Amino acid sequence: MTARVFKVILSYDGTNYVGWQVQCNGLAIQQVVETVLARVLGERVRVTASGRTDSGVHALAQVASFAANTEMSAERLARAMNGNLPDDIRVRSVEDAPFTFHAIRDARWKRYRYVLRDGPIPDVFARLHSWHVRYPLDVPAMSIAAEALLGRHDFASFQAANSPRATTVRTIHELRVMRTATIPDEIWIEVTADGFLYNMVRNIVGSLVLIGRGERTSDWLRDVLAGRDRRLAGPTAPPLGLFLDQVGYEAWKGGDGRADAQVSGA
Amino acid sequence: MTARVFKVILSYDGTNYVGWQVQCNGLAIQQVVETVLARVLGERVRVTASGRTDSGVHALAQVASFAANTEMSAERLARAMNGNLPDDIRVRSVEDAPFTFHAIRDARWKRYRYVLRDGPIPDVFARLHSWHVRYPLDVPAMSIAAEALLGRHDFASFQAANSPRATTVRTIHELRVMRTATIPDEIWIEVTADGFLYNMVRNIVGSLVLIGRGERTSDWLRDVLAGRDRRLAGPTAPPLGLFLDQVGYEAWKGGDGRADAQVSGA
Repeated sequence: MTARVFKVILSYDGTNYVGWQVQCNGLAIQQVVETVLARVLGERVRVTASGRTDSGVHALAQVASFAANTEMSAERLARAMNGNLPDDIRVRSVEDAPFTFHAIRDARWKRYRYVLRDGPIPDVFARLHSWHVRYPLDVPAMSIAAEALLGRHDFASFQAANSPRATTVRTIHELRVMRTATIPDEIWIEVTADGFLYNMVRNIVGSLVLIGRGERTSDWLRDVLAGRDRRLAGPTAPPLGLFLDQVGYEAWKGGDGRADAQVSGA
Repeated sequence: MTARVFKVILSYDGTNYVGWQVQCNGLAIQQVVETVLARVLGERVRVTASGRTDSGVHALAQVASFAANTEMSAERLARAMNGNLPDDIRVRSVEDAPFTFHAIRDARWKRYRYVLRDGPIPDVFARLHSWHVRYPLDVPAMSIAAEALLGRHDFASFQAANSPRATTVRTIHELRVMRTATIPDEIWIEVTADGFLYNMVRNIVGSLVLIGRGERTSDWLRDVLAGRDRRLAGPTAPPLGLFLDQVGYEAWKGGDGRADAQVSGA
């Protein structure tokens, strides 16, 4: 029997987990998925995700890969996994992937969505999946400010302190700040990039919120970026509003048929 | 100082509670609200809600009343309550009410919303606030069936067994079954009535789901109603999809400007 490689798409509510990767201080999503696969396949496999999500961060469509010696169909494997997973982790699909497929190495871009709420009274049903701020946010100002981050830049100012990387240069393909059409109090910040530094989205969101509440002007973000110093940026937004939305394995061609790098506001 | 009567509108996520009313097996919402009011007012008050919600049932706008000897403004009281309540219970408003106001006795109608999901894979973010069924539901068939329940009837078939009431006659003003515009997998069943028997909405929903999945015809509901026997109806839908949506203190005039009794489907 030849080992096969599988590509799995997962969604999970990160509320009750320490993140994707195994940590000593609580239950990791990777751990739960690997335990379920050992039961379903009868062999221990190592599951690799496109990237870690931090403690409390959610995923709409995390991509993971693993190799296994099974003859089960991909569809049956998906059903068996869902039959054994807790209800805050769901397999959206399983498919056979090329033998060379690797969820981290092959990822070309990722999109994160950050969900904010700015109504006068927090919605009890949204409290675990959005960050409620107590003041109305100026979304057009945030949207204009966000333009400064588009394209290829050194994002050192938005990297968590003490997290050295070989390079802090990344390319943001798209950055959208918008009120949703259906919930007037809800604001989405969607960031698509070829890669992200540690806490990069949450630090961008924390900075944009300072602009949205009028504590900084739209121009300020350009200076923060140019300064390449974490101390210049805003605070880190809490994890509960952050969702890994999509992972791309082909070259970026513009989301939803739009041009390469653009900001759209509401 | 004269005692004042307050009308409070509350929303709560019922997931972690045994319901509105104090029970011996866990924490009740009433208990939490009364504890917070004792802290805020410096006196113990009894809070009366428009009706109990059961264990695990949610509220978008529960109405409650209480009398207190405070000089605090209603607005400040609302802020003080929200500052002390856990984040799964929120005060939406507090206002001074006529001295004779009583949240139960004066209620003229109530609306409940039941949220169903029928997608192939449950949405992890909706799992605590909707009932996921594994089969696609025929919403038009459910909507046609629902017409049988409109108006004044003996709803004994939809009352929980062993819950004797003086009368089991109630008037359903409106009953809507519809797919929501924004989430294709989501179905709402909204029932407005002058009063509800114990588990009445959940038994109606459990019966409509049997029709929606094709196990019963649309005609069947008429026979269930006529039989006046709980054993004829479908199973009780789980509490997690049920929301107390609105409580009316004036005579029913038709929701959203519509005529008195009607069913609208999708």
